[in-house]
Amino acid sequence: MPDSVLRHVVLFAFKATSSQQDIDGIVAAFKALSSKISEIKGFEWGINSSPEGLNQGLTHAFTVTFHSDADRDTYIPHPAHQEFVGLLGPHLDKVTVIDYWTKE
Amino acid sequence: MPDSVLRHVVLFAFKATSSQQDIDGIVAAFKALSSKISEIKGFEWGINSSPEGLNQGLTHAFTVTFHSDADRDTYIPHPAHQEFVGLLGPHLDKVTVIDYWTKE
Repeated sequence: MPDSVLRHVVLFAFKATSSQQDIDGIVAAFKALSSKISEIKGFEWGINSSPEGLNQGLTHAFTVTFHSDADRDTYIPHPAHQEFVGLLGPHLDKVTVIDYWTKE
Repeated sequence: MPDSVLRHVVLFAFKATSSQQDIDGIVAAFKALSSKISEIKGFEWGINSSPEGLNQGLTHAFTVTFHSDADRDTYIPHPAHQEFVGLLGPHLDKVTVIDYWTKE
């Protein structure tokens, strides 16, 4: 791994009207992007379990790792990512996205 | 590394009245927790560089890695962490915290 990587941290809250099946489908579609977009160098996700109550309603976290700004810039408009955004849209209540180059 | 780890993702926005020196001091103090709290198994941070405009005003990201819920539960009330929270408080405009056990 390079000394520093670009983390793309994506946090979602889903609508109260979205079913567990809807949410599971969105998570599966996000995971599947790794096999469709070669610029994705790492992917992990999970469900909020913080006891601090500072999650601002956000419940699902996804961290996508890139090795360059150019790779991230390829990912965002990539047709497979845009298809995912279309699937997500009707179910999205809140979103927060932060990208950062890792420092120790 | 275990198959799954507990990520503690912390996002801050600082007050407009906070100086760069204030912010640098907070980042340094956060970094220093790794040497004071043995339950911290990984630490990285960085400054938001997302072009998507979905960072909700948050500018600084910190990801602390733990290997158990118990370690996270030791960290939160740990005197060194609480001292950091006291240093941070006067400069904090917004905060979002999500913890998640990593899944692939």
